Amino acid sequence: MRSIPAFLLAILSVSVSAADYRSEQLVQAAQLRDSVVPGAAHAIVESLTTEVGPRMAGTEADMRAVNWARAKFAALGFDEVRIEPVKFPLWTRGREHAEVIAPYPQPLRITALGGSIGTGEQPLQAEVVMFDTLADLQAAADGSLSGKIAFINGRMERFRDGRGYGPAVAQRGNGASEAAKKGALAVVIRSVGTDLDRFPHTGQMRYAEGVTRIPAAALSVPDANLLQHMIQRGQPVTLALDIGAELRGEGLSYNVIGDIRGRSKPEEVVVIGGHLDSWDLGTGAIDDGAGVGITMAAGAAILAHAQRPLRTVRVIAWANEEQGLHGANTYAAAHAKEITQHILGAESDFGAGRVYALRAGVSTEYQSRFAQIAEVLAPLGIPYEPTGGGAGPDVGPLVVRGMPWAQLAQDGTDYFDTHHTANDVLERIDSAALDQQVAAYAVLAWMAADAPSDFGRVPPPVVAK
Amino acid sequence: MRSIPAFLLAILSVSVSAADYRSEQLVQAAQLRDSVVPGAAHAIVESLTTEVGPRMAGTEADMRAVNWARAKFAALGFDEVRIEPVKFPLWTRGREHAEVIAPYPQPLRITALGGSIGTGEQPLQAEVVMFDTLADLQAAADGSLSGKIAFINGRMERFRDGRGYGPAVAQRGNGASEAAKKGALAVVIRSVGTDLDRFPHTGQMRYAEGVTRIPAAALSVPDANLLQHMIQRGQPVTLALDIGAELRGEGLSYNVIGDIRGRSKPEEVVVIGGHLDSWDLGTGAIDDGAGVGITMAAGAAILAHAQRPLRTVRVIAWANEEQGLHGANTYAAAHAKEITQHILGAESDFGAGRVYALRAGVSTEYQSRFAQIAEVLAPLGIPYEPTGGGAGPDVGPLVVRGMPWAQLAQDGTDYFDTHHTANDVLERIDSAALDQQVAAYAVLAWMAADAPSDFGRVPPPVVAK
Repeated sequence: MRSIPAFLLAILSVSVSAADYRSEQLVQAAQLRDSVVPGAAHAIVESLTTEVGPRMAGTEADMRAVNWARAKFAALGFDEVRIEPVKFPLWTRGREHAEVIAPYPQPLRITALGGSIGTGEQPLQAEVVMFDTLADLQAAADGSLSGKIAFINGRMERFRDGRGYGPAVAQRGNGASEAAKKGALAVVIRSVGTDLDRFPHTGQMRYAEGVTRIPAAALSVPDANLLQHMIQRGQPVTLALDIGAELRGEGLSYNVIGDIRGRSKPEEVVVIGGHLDSWDLGTGAIDDGAGVGITMAAGAAILAHAQRPLRTVRVIAWANEEQGLHGANTYAAAHAKEITQHILGAESDFGAGRVYALRAGVSTEYQSRFAQIAEVLAPLGIPYEPTGGGAGPDVGPLVVRGMPWAQLAQDGTDYFDTHHTANDVLERIDSAALDQQVAAYAVLAWMAADAPSDFGRVPPPVVAK
Repeated sequence: MRSIPAFLLAILSVSVSAADYRSEQLVQAAQLRDSVVPGAAHAIVESLTTEVGPRMAGTEADMRAVNWARAKFAALGFDEVRIEPVKFPLWTRGREHAEVIAPYPQPLRITALGGSIGTGEQPLQAEVVMFDTLADLQAAADGSLSGKIAFINGRMERFRDGRGYGPAVAQRGNGASEAAKKGALAVVIRSVGTDLDRFPHTGQMRYAEGVTRIPAAALSVPDANLLQHMIQRGQPVTLALDIGAELRGEGLSYNVIGDIRGRSKPEEVVVIGGHLDSWDLGTGAIDDGAGVGITMAAGAAILAHAQRPLRTVRVIAWANEEQGLHGANTYAAAHAKEITQHILGAESDFGAGRVYALRAGVSTEYQSRFAQIAEVLAPLGIPYEPTGGGAGPDVGPLVVRGMPWAQLAQDGTDYFDTHHTANDVLERIDSAALDQQVAAYAVLAWMAADAPSDFGRVPPPVVAK
């Protein structure tokens, strides 16, 4: 190689970096794919949801979840297990109750949105003004909601890829501040969900700078319909809201990290994982016990495989995803110096539905490798789709810094039926569907970690979720 | 006729009493069937669930439901609308909370069973002992549950005709007293339901005479699974129960009765209806807003029909079915003298699923009439089944006193998914399915009221539900 001119070396290095997998690697990956123990991921989710259950960031249960994850990584035989601290604003839920006072008195099922303030000592009681969409509220005259409760009644559409979430979630994230700008005392929204069940969907909201903070809550879909039907009858509808939530002090949690050390380039890392925290209403089975269980079990399959990959496979159980990617942001900042050693990342945070496509955020020269990975995934029904998709939420902060990403796109048709509700429980999970995902994550992580070279760096893509 | 001997007259009278419908009656009934206004029943259920909502017997909301029913009967043009008082023991729910204290602390979703006492000022805290069935609990040694909470984990099976309910409901009705006999401090049961959602199912329980009264609550199915999975891990599981329910004083409600006066035998009555009260968790859409809506709309169709039937059609919105057929028992006692004038009864109290069969509890000589009624119902997909079925709960006390009954058997495959839960809301109802049932009830009531004679008297059948 010493005699090759520099310019030619540069060309060669491009060619080398984009080299394909050797056939024996494909054989080994296929063996890995077929070695997954049926029910392994389900057993991990069952353990987490039974032994810990709800684990909202910063709670005592969240700390038990951290200990659970450390112990589970160790029991699965990961080479190194460690925790890294994550700090964030501490939110507590407290009481929550709503009822129509007049003209048709009856209770409504609500839940406070994450980050919301409470209504104070006394329940707040006011007339409700309904808007079909957040845009309609934004178009209302300034001061027109003075002394009123705003009700934003936008509906979420159902799609396999969950693309109805983005447009619908704005009323959750921004509804309070938009309503406050018009003078409202509080905001209630139709839950961001695709179900017709009487479970309100919680989720994070944020207050805009310089705008009065008002309480924010979600009605279940049937309760939003009820309130709509009452309002449509034409008489003023008075609602009483009693919310005890508060945002006070600082919370502490931990990213829990399990490494499978690479056999020759251990400093280079492929990151997979799910987030460890959950909302407090359900047991966090689909969001995101499934992601934790799938990627821990994928790691266990790699550990049990005859051939260690060249590079390290890192499984991260991310802290506090729900309230703003706190674990992910902390990790990306703390590991800023090794950021280029993170050669590929993928997160499982879209429930427990089967994977239907492999996608990747890499330069075109690396795409043939993903076509090869998809050859190994073909018996699982997973083709490579060269366009579309996006990185999972917790790998986002790394992707923004140039890390290539892959996506094992899951069928999320039903995901938003129970997302962020009390009904996010183990019963939502099909164990065989998890097995398919474990096989897919094991193959992806192993092949990425055993790749002929890294995957270059990429410009920041649009981060999904 | 004067010259016919008495014994021959007796034979003839049997023959006459079992006479069939004339062809013009079949034509009129078919016209009635086809005259039903689409959406009429759904609009009534929407009105009841929106304007009143939950209406547990004895509550202020129950009184509003009574006023609602009076006004609705009047608005629909019934000839006479009246109310009849019904008294019963008054039960209130109060607070309800359960959580596992050790070894896996997390909250469990429960609801107190109707009629249960509370746990007192302090939450009750004790170890849980699990039984797969009520029979297993009954087989436990005396005193073996001393200081413990009994958990009865029996499962309900799903069938179109709901026949899984009877065997499953015994743990709800009798579980507390059976557990108390073994020394238990409280009982929790797996909800009597066929769903996998995180809604506990309430429903009435009863204390046996002379047995210590202990609190009784139902866990949702996922929570029962959770508790089971914890107990199966082998360590003692401690549960804290906090139930504020109490049974104190006397409640007052009303049967609300709307009559459509018969054109020549107004004193003879065909009874249809549903029950007006509901449990307090949902809005009582399928149980039993549907039955009220279906039978009120059937009455409205008969009122709008060109030909009044010979006899009176009486639509009854029954008071307090849920806590023990109080309205039905009171009516049967109050109308004891006119009991033989109640020539046929049917109740709609099995949700909102389509009718798939007509059945009747009548002597064999009247069966050909039901075959004729089924001819008219054939376009609705409703055949006559000469055996099986049973009277609805609220006609039971009249049937026990000899009143013949008919049943329009509904598809209850999904009924116990949301029965007695917060998820019993308008969204569970398909308006077109209600239309089919309105047509069926209108035809049945009109033809029964226009029959060539009454339907005799029958020995008491087994009363369903």
